[in-house]
Amino acid sequence: MTPRAYEAIKWCDIVVGYHTYMSLIKDLIAGKEQVGTGMKQEIDRCRRAVELAAEGKRVVVVSSGDPGVYGMAGLVLELVGKLPAEQRPEAEIIPGLTAANTAASILGAPLMHDYAVISLSDLLTPWELIKKRARMAAEGDFVIALYNPRSRGRATHLDEICEIILQYRDPATPAGIVRKAGRAGMSYTITDLANLAAQDVDMQSTVIIGNSRTRVEDGRIITPRGYEL
Amino acid sequence: MTPRAYEAIKWCDIVVGYHTYMSLIKDLIAGKEQVGTGMKQEIDRCRRAVELAAEGKRVVVVSSGDPGVYGMAGLVLELVGKLPAEQRPEAEIIPGLTAANTAASILGAPLMHDYAVISLSDLLTPWELIKKRARMAAEGDFVIALYNPRSRGRATHLDEICEIILQYRDPATPAGIVRKAGRAGMSYTITDLANLAAQDVDMQSTVIIGNSRTRVEDGRIITPRGYEL
Repeated sequence: MTPRAYEAIKWCDIVVGYHTYMSLIKDLIAGKEQVGTGMKQEIDRCRRAVELAAEGKRVVVVSSGDPGVYGMAGLVLELVGKLPAEQRPEAEIIPGLTAANTAASILGAPLMHDYAVISLSDLLTPWELIKKRARMAAEGDFVIALYNPRSRGRATHLDEICEIILQYRDPATPAGIVRKAGRAGMSYTITDLANLAAQDVDMQSTVIIGNSRTRVEDGRIITPRGYEL
Repeated sequence: MTPRAYEAIKWCDIVVGYHTYMSLIKDLIAGKEQVGTGMKQEIDRCRRAVELAAEGKRVVVVSSGDPGVYGMAGLVLELVGKLPAEQRPEAEIIPGLTAANTAASILGAPLMHDYAVISLSDLLTPWELIKKRARMAAEGDFVIALYNPRSRGRATHLDEICEIILQYRDPATPAGIVRKAGRAGMSYTITDLANLAAQDVDMQSTVIIGNSRTRVEDGRIITPRGYEL
């Protein structure tokens, strides 16, 4: 958590968020009004936050990672924009460390060169578009970070994506999986593209697949920038 | 700066870095041994840091943004790996907020969906590969964040990249420029893809170009995730 996020939470009267994230900061928010909701209730929770802020309350919506990356930032701004101009509360986005960057630091330095971030969740995005993006990222030799790589409802998504990337990239390309990046119980695995889909990967995992120059050295994934050493 | 980065700097005996970055934290590092070097001396500076750490010193290499994104993390790990196993110092990568995420928070919520990060610096990367990546990112409808978008030696790179992206994306696609993201003197401009290259953009700028669904609302760039509101 950055100092800015910490200060904002200290400042507010009301904390709104997915209850799993609220429980991660329960000591920090003790004594404050808390509006916790379950998964897939993003719209309700952000709407309530915007209503409370429009009433003049000091409200913080908490996300894990960076609220600006697959988080609540966009939804909050969209809902603020739906209010008549004179009722709109001020909204500030406080950036955070997104899972790609936290996971990269655990694995070594895989994101040292151009990279693409793709979520494999097809709840809000057509699966065909997700596959197209994976293909373009593979063809462009981007390092690729995958969010929401697998869940019960999407058991074979990661397998399909690996098949697509394998059409452009060596099966020995280093790949890493970080579970619970930046949280208690974090763990990681370093493998290669050919064996990635067979690993234990879940919705709380972030996957990073190297580019054509990425290598594993001394147990760490490194994508060289190209310095001559 | 995250608390982890702060603690590491407090802990160390020696701070190594590009002198511009050192001057940003001069109060924090007062009294510590400082090894500052100029631009384009990345290898010298990281080699010195690794040597000092191998001697048992507590060394921190400072970067702006995230050291794992076009920063010093990879070079440090490469240089550690070149030492005989018994001489290798322990190296930890402390992730930070990279410019794409900081800039996004200033512009609104442009990175809410799949995105690609591309540096337009061709010092270490062939210009043809950079253009290919821009083309793939545009064809895949990724939100695109551009680092090092323009410098004296690369006056027309951004123009060429905009031409490529315009082959796939509407000229009215929202685009934002953030100068000195997260630092004193930060400023930003919101424009569109057609007018992006004509703006005042320099090496200290980060550029973000929306995807086909990105819009500007109430002075902020928003890429909707697809919630039905």
